[in-house]
Amino acid sequence: MPWPDTDLTELLGIRYPLIQAPMATVSTPELVAAVSAAGGLGSLGGAVLPPDQLHQDVESIRSLTDAPFAVNLFAPIETPPAPAQVAAMSEALAPWRERYGLDAPGEPPQPPPSIVDAQLAVVIEQRPAVFSFTFGIPPAEALDEMRDVGIKLIGTATAPGEAVMLAEAGCDAVVAQGSEAGGHRGTFALPFERALIGTMALVPQVVDAVDVPVIAAGGIMDGRGIAAALALGAAGAQLGTAFIACPESAAPDSYKRSLADSDASATTVTDAFTGRPARGLRTPFFEELERAGSEIPPYPLQAMLVAELREAGLEREELDTVSRLAGQGAPMARELPAAELVGQLISETEAALAT
Amino acid sequence: MPWPDTDLTELLGIRYPLIQAPMATVSTPELVAAVSAAGGLGSLGGAVLPPDQLHQDVESIRSLTDAPFAVNLFAPIETPPAPAQVAAMSEALAPWRERYGLDAPGEPPQPPPSIVDAQLAVVIEQRPAVFSFTFGIPPAEALDEMRDVGIKLIGTATAPGEAVMLAEAGCDAVVAQGSEAGGHRGTFALPFERALIGTMALVPQVVDAVDVPVIAAGGIMDGRGIAAALALGAAGAQLGTAFIACPESAAPDSYKRSLADSDASATTVTDAFTGRPARGLRTPFFEELERAGSEIPPYPLQAMLVAELREAGLEREELDTVSRLAGQGAPMARELPAAELVGQLISETEAALAT
Repeated sequence: MPWPDTDLTELLGIRYPLIQAPMATVSTPELVAAVSAAGGLGSLGGAVLPPDQLHQDVESIRSLTDAPFAVNLFAPIETPPAPAQVAAMSEALAPWRERYGLDAPGEPPQPPPSIVDAQLAVVIEQRPAVFSFTFGIPPAEALDEMRDVGIKLIGTATAPGEAVMLAEAGCDAVVAQGSEAGGHRGTFALPFERALIGTMALVPQVVDAVDVPVIAAGGIMDGRGIAAALALGAAGAQLGTAFIACPESAAPDSYKRSLADSDASATTVTDAFTGRPARGLRTPFFEELERAGSEIPPYPLQAMLVAELREAGLEREELDTVSRLAGQGAPMARELPAAELVGQLISETEAALAT
Repeated sequence: MPWPDTDLTELLGIRYPLIQAPMATVSTPELVAAVSAAGGLGSLGGAVLPPDQLHQDVESIRSLTDAPFAVNLFAPIETPPAPAQVAAMSEALAPWRERYGLDAPGEPPQPPPSIVDAQLAVVIEQRPAVFSFTFGIPPAEALDEMRDVGIKLIGTATAPGEAVMLAEAGCDAVVAQGSEAGGHRGTFALPFERALIGTMALVPQVVDAVDVPVIAAGGIMDGRGIAAALALGAAGAQLGTAFIACPESAAPDSYKRSLADSDASATTVTDAFTGRPARGLRTPFFEELERAGSEIPPYPLQAMLVAELREAGLEREELDTVSRLAGQGAPMARELPAAELVGQLISETEAALAT
């Protein structure tokens, strides 16, 4: 069975309607370029990259491939200083720091100044084929400028109502992020726990709610999942966790290996990882922090507070304190070069579509 | 494209690999018979039926169709008397009873004597084509007797490990119940919140874990969902919420109508409905009870405690106190006669498989 052109392949000028999800701190120019060169759409998770690094990474991708790729950023979010929560969390972390041989923490972290405007300027200047985003909708002026220079826009929705808002804001396509998905929840228009909607239920309702192409995300790990996404009416599939274990990914080796050793019940959605709800592997450390509940400081303060414990854990290969964002399909992740993985995904999808 | 015979159609002697989910208190002999006569597999949710009523309902189905059908029961579960929780919940409900003009409650409810053994005896005597179950694994002796008389066995799993246990117990097929599903969670081998795995992630992992046919459930509402389930490697699809609004269902009319008026974010999983985790439409009343947390008495005590408020709510057409179990696809439910719905599902699936 030949590969169907979907609205998405035409829109983005890609061969297969397969998107590698952005994944800030895990995606690399090498990963993005490998996926795009293989006929999918690689996505650079640029949200935590300073503008000059973002610029450099985009140039690195361009040095590796002429194929279209996406740059992904977070929509601007407010971070209050939250001194009481920071103090409470620091206290909760103190015994862990001692256990890991870390000194007492220095000054409590402050919300870093927003770099989104400068990052958006880099995107407008660099003109990747696609700009994708999550956590809401970036300023209309920036989106207008991007549209003017021919950049296609893809927003992230976790409920049909959010998809409608994104389409009305001029998105060319929307990602429907099901509850299975690893990483941060993209939810922006309702409490996140009301938008933990499984991919199987979410995708058809988003497809029926908007006129733009819909990209299914969440729990898709192989060709069976991609074929299922297309059957649900999606024009394409976005896979993140499936690419974490690739050699081109920046995830530490122990993180990569731990995916295959996990099981379908191994993940949880909590703000204990970063201060914003995200799905990742559950560990006793993060379960203890989660019990702190409202004491968890907002993103990125929580991520800053646990950063040294993460490094210390990685050094000792004790993964308890190492946040490892991943979806409910984590055990199905494959340690394969990205181009090879894309090839396998494509032939698996063909097989699933043919039966 | 002709309908594929799957392992399931051959196993169960049905035309289409489409199962109407049991749904205790909602399914009726008329619903079961209509689905089975149309070429799917109807399932009688018999768990709360006294043995003589169960016997009578099976005979009613037989009077309506010669086609194979399933009878579904709960595996035996322990219900402790929980007097402290019952007292606390009664107190929490007191102002609601007053608001609904109900008298002070009578004697606090006690765990009813188990009727599972007598129900199992009815199944063995009546020999439906299929016996399906949830909440665990019924006694081996009963399952052996059923197998001896040619009844096929289908258990319910919410995680791959549970599916393996069911296959080892001799199930001929297993339902993989994704987190989208309405009604009670079937979870029996781990805490329920660790087994809220989306259908898209769960089904392929269950398919890879067991050798018996897998039936996908959770969030499947139309032919797109059925085609997606087959693409994921399932041999069939089980739909519950899709059948609630059929005229043959026993759900009150206001419950049926409320599905189409809901949205994808309208449901929650809580034990506030019955005392066991179940997915249904969120209302202020059940949200308040949910906040009681550990004070919720175990199934069926909680269901008994809220029963009169449910009736009073139905009478007034105020649905706040009316538990309405439903999945995350609820807004897609159609008010169609069951045979007509099955026909539409089949042609939609054919269309989705053909594209």
